[in-house]
Amino acid sequence: MAEEVKLLKTWSSRFGLRVVWALKLKGIQYEAFDEDLSNKSALLLQYNPVYKKVPVLVHNGKPISESLVILEYIDETWKQNPMLPQHPLEKARQRFWAKFNDEKLLPSISGIFTKEGKEREEAVAASLENLKFVEEELKGKKFFGGEKIGLADLVFGWLANLICVFEEVLGFKIIDERFPLLLAWMKEFSQLPIIKDNWPPHDKMIIKYQEQYDKYHPAK
Amino acid sequence: MAEEVKLLKTWSSRFGLRVVWALKLKGIQYEAFDEDLSNKSALLLQYNPVYKKVPVLVHNGKPISESLVILEYIDETWKQNPMLPQHPLEKARQRFWAKFNDEKLLPSISGIFTKEGKEREEAVAASLENLKFVEEELKGKKFFGGEKIGLADLVFGWLANLICVFEEVLGFKIIDERFPLLLAWMKEFSQLPIIKDNWPPHDKMIIKYQEQYDKYHPAK
Repeated sequence: MAEEVKLLKTWSSRFGLRVVWALKLKGIQYEAFDEDLSNKSALLLQYNPVYKKVPVLVHNGKPISESLVILEYIDETWKQNPMLPQHPLEKARQRFWAKFNDEKLLPSISGIFTKEGKEREEAVAASLENLKFVEEELKGKKFFGGEKIGLADLVFGWLANLICVFEEVLGFKIIDERFPLLLAWMKEFSQLPIIKDNWPPHDKMIIKYQEQYDKYHPAK
Repeated sequence: MAEEVKLLKTWSSRFGLRVVWALKLKGIQYEAFDEDLSNKSALLLQYNPVYKKVPVLVHNGKPISESLVILEYIDETWKQNPMLPQHPLEKARQRFWAKFNDEKLLPSISGIFTKEGKEREEAVAASLENLKFVEEELKGKKFFGGEKIGLADLVFGWLANLICVFEEVLGFKIIDERFPLLLAWMKEFSQLPIIKDNWPPHDKMIIKYQEQYDKYHPAK
């Protein structure tokens, strides 16, 4: 059957990137639609009426929303290069850490970027606590998936190159030598061809996040 | 192999109940440990060091946390009475709605209960908008899973009996005749033996939620 795969995303979205990487990992050809979120397309509103958010994967006309749901769909639909292991317990582990990234780690680190003063200090403390759990999980492993990357690697993947953007804009380090395993993972992960070849340009990211930073922290 | 299945929960937790129902649906014998969250057990801290929250399923000594992750684990480990359909697209649909419950519907309805004044009005508006999506999803279906209950039914399951507790304590209706399909589903779902036989006593729930309500809304 001729497959039709479309991906509605933005050029820089962390949630869209993980889907891009998953499709690349599977070797699936797709048509990308880069959305302007200040002027959402009719396609996006039609395909994701509940959240009106990217990413949306459209496979043979059927839309799937929510990036973690999309990753599972991709893994079940195209079996090559599995992102989830076979054993239910190992699957649960990857899902647990993916959820941890979205619900704990990502919001805490975003908080460092968007907040100020005491609230920023709290976000730093929460981020460090969360990063310690992630560091612990990497003990004895090359990737979160073990010897090969798995679903949790793609979900934590935003750290690998975006942290240095945050750090450059903020002017201080978030992930330093207190997290040697995570630093090693970031290096290893970001050098994988499917990641390296599908990462937004650093310069463009700096401009975008500098603008965001200025919006959150207007000159007084 | 002799199976050892333990479930750390509380007597009333919405997240724990969905796991209880899943185990009952599968016909799995388990030992329940009811936690006192003001004095968490060593077992809970050992098995869920990241969140220190219930529910935790412990299967042959291996802990699994986060209720949605646990439900998937149960479905993959014990194949009888599947909670997720075979087709990836139908699976994605159930996962989407389960996530929608946890991230949108449940927080919005909890907001009606915990907030006051303008904030409560906003929570009511958000809840109604979310409930409309749920109502729409039930069109042409008996259950969210189709003809039989699926994962999404267990996740939306708290609505079936807890809404009437909220409504009794609040003194007004949340789900009324604007949602005929949802009302029919609530009735159908709550009468299933695995649900009816495993629901905390209504009187005890009223006392618990009245106390919670009084805590959130102290007399001025």
